[in-house]
Amino acid sequence: MITEILSTGDELLLGDITDTNSRYLCRRLKAAGLRVSRITAVGDDVHGIKRALKAISGRAQICLVTGGLGPTQDDLTAQAAAQAAGTELALNSQALESMRLFFETRNYELTQINKKQARLPQTARVMENTHGTAPGFDMDIAGCRFFFMPGVPLEMKHMFTLKVLPEIVQMTGGTPDIRIERIMVFGLGESMVQEKLLAFNERFPELDLGFRARFPLIEVKILTHSKDMDMGAAKEWILTRLGANVVSGQGLTLAQEIGRLLSESGQTLAVAESCTGGLISNMITDVAGASDYFLLSATTYANAAKMDVLGVAEQTLIDHGAVSEPTAREMAVGARRAGKADWAVATTGIAGPTGGTDEKPVGTVCIGVASPHGVFTRRVVRDMGERERNKQMFAALALDMLRREF
Amino acid sequence: MITEILSTGDELLLGDITDTNSRYLCRRLKAAGLRVSRITAVGDDVHGIKRALKAISGRAQICLVTGGLGPTQDDLTAQAAAQAAGTELALNSQALESMRLFFETRNYELTQINKKQARLPQTARVMENTHGTAPGFDMDIAGCRFFFMPGVPLEMKHMFTLKVLPEIVQMTGGTPDIRIERIMVFGLGESMVQEKLLAFNERFPELDLGFRARFPLIEVKILTHSKDMDMGAAKEWILTRLGANVVSGQGLTLAQEIGRLLSESGQTLAVAESCTGGLISNMITDVAGASDYFLLSATTYANAAKMDVLGVAEQTLIDHGAVSEPTAREMAVGARRAGKADWAVATTGIAGPTGGTDEKPVGTVCIGVASPHGVFTRRVVRDMGERERNKQMFAALALDMLRREF
Repeated sequence: MITEILSTGDELLLGDITDTNSRYLCRRLKAAGLRVSRITAVGDDVHGIKRALKAISGRAQICLVTGGLGPTQDDLTAQAAAQAAGTELALNSQALESMRLFFETRNYELTQINKKQARLPQTARVMENTHGTAPGFDMDIAGCRFFFMPGVPLEMKHMFTLKVLPEIVQMTGGTPDIRIERIMVFGLGESMVQEKLLAFNERFPELDLGFRARFPLIEVKILTHSKDMDMGAAKEWILTRLGANVVSGQGLTLAQEIGRLLSESGQTLAVAESCTGGLISNMITDVAGASDYFLLSATTYANAAKMDVLGVAEQTLIDHGAVSEPTAREMAVGARRAGKADWAVATTGIAGPTGGTDEKPVGTVCIGVASPHGVFTRRVVRDMGERERNKQMFAALALDMLRREF
Repeated sequence: MITEILSTGDELLLGDITDTNSRYLCRRLKAAGLRVSRITAVGDDVHGIKRALKAISGRAQICLVTGGLGPTQDDLTAQAAAQAAGTELALNSQALESMRLFFETRNYELTQINKKQARLPQTARVMENTHGTAPGFDMDIAGCRFFFMPGVPLEMKHMFTLKVLPEIVQMTGGTPDIRIERIMVFGLGESMVQEKLLAFNERFPELDLGFRARFPLIEVKILTHSKDMDMGAAKEWILTRLGANVVSGQGLTLAQEIGRLLSESGQTLAVAESCTGGLISNMITDVAGASDYFLLSATTYANAAKMDVLGVAEQTLIDHGAVSEPTAREMAVGARRAGKADWAVATTGIAGPTGGTDEKPVGTVCIGVASPHGVFTRRVVRDMGERERNKQMFAALALDMLRREF
């Protein structure tokens, strides 16, 4: 069934708020097997809303509308709906009763302005609002079923779950969920990933392939609407073609995958950061349960801290500089020792915007990994043009190197 | 001029991402004196995009389009634009040259698929992408001027600011820029900030007041379209009413404000983190030039690391636990000593989702600040319901305490 969403409210068009309602509804509808074909946002303007409702009724069978049901003068959706359906507004006693109840249990007074909210199109069926005053309603306009909900996210979500979704599931006969397999990739540009998977559609015509940049990673998605379709062969094919660039066949981020590797092997991690400035540590600790394997991170911006906390030799800093593979090596070894950890990863580099030289330009990072199997270092130059993005790229390069040594 | 926005991308309609681009554009256009009359989102489908472009060209004079310019097979906007304008795609040498340059400076390879991005409608004028590969373009379709930009927010924002906005300002006759004063506030909810500033409109009727939640801070903005209007008195009035909750009257974040305080006084900082897991360090080092004052951060998740690296006494951990004011105090003192810094701030707490107890629930954080003037500690319980948001709140509480002690 062709499904659309209409969001109303000046605040959306003035950029005062982001339309998170639509995203929520898209996600819930996807889970119910419905793909939204279009989202429209219009302001608080009866004519504009009416025009949008009519255009949608010509294209879609289901439309979810949010916003414009409140008591103030810019809440005009019911009026627009009545005009679009060629009917009138009238006091809806069921709506009034449900509001009266809502106010009674909260010891609020029902004002004249509130009563305006109970005036609905004559052909509307009321949907109770369990978390606010404005009742919702659903009605047909030119063969399309419209569900009108409040714009307040909390009220909308409850009304959608309790009233709208059951209706939709009934209308669509309970279409199965979309099933998705996610594969996280690092070290290849989106176009290169795409090129490597060009033959996918020919080999697996019954499956869909999607890509999403999650800087600096790429997420590859295999999608199917079928309950029975086996996705194993397609996934295997992708994993083989992307090889060591696959971070996770389960859709895990670098920090989640490293957490998994450490947890499953019962090993621990320490981190020494210079140019990444705590970002690696922050990524690792965003994963719930990180305290099981994460022991220590030392962000040593000053040379003195590199020596005192990590035991980097002064001579190393003099001979090779702070941004060098020998320094990265000693930082990693020092972090592993100081943290009493099985593994350690270290970064030292130049995130910019200043501090670069001809020999060591902005974008240079030296990475060290100390492990039970030995110590490894690597030097990479990759300037992403901005300090924060350089830090993100450096952190990903370091975690990816750690993952590959595991 | 009637202005609309068109967002393209299956990820919007599947609910994978929220359309933050449209909000950004609405806000910037408002500042340039333009009010967006409609936002439309459609999926990656040539026919759907073409239909939307044609409908918009019948209503609007200006339309900003985002998404669908990438190199992959679901990037179809250029094709749809060509069809809507009744023209063909052709290799655009200027677009190809700009991409070649972008790839050269980054040592990446230009793939066949990338070259597809240089195929634009014949009547299109190229807009350079300073932060990515996909060139933008602008063209007329049935009397409406369309600006096609990438969907990646960073790339889109730069292209909008550098290329699109100057064109629009010229088209609309150069509406004057809005002048904005920004005040950053922490420790008050948005509604409380609004309540404290209720009298603003009456006192300064010629100025506008805006609020923006930048979790966990609130940004208060004073706006004027006039070149000559003095904003000093209004700003002073706000600063007085919000008092010590003002982080910065110059719109600086907590990390930027602390950077300013340290730089101006020639002092240095060390950090000891447990529950914030490197986030404070990451915030501090996101500020360019942080290496001038930031010496060391130790993220000590393990008790052993707290003892070894920071010198926290085992007896303190036994008597009071890791999440306690005595531990926070010793962490701060130890970080200050280990980093040889003038100032140190330390956090230890429970970010959740697990690990809470009746006595120390999730959301508990103990903060220590060690300074040339003494050592201070504080215990706060504030559960934001999510691990990442708890970390953000804890980090802000710690940096705010540091700022207030300065």
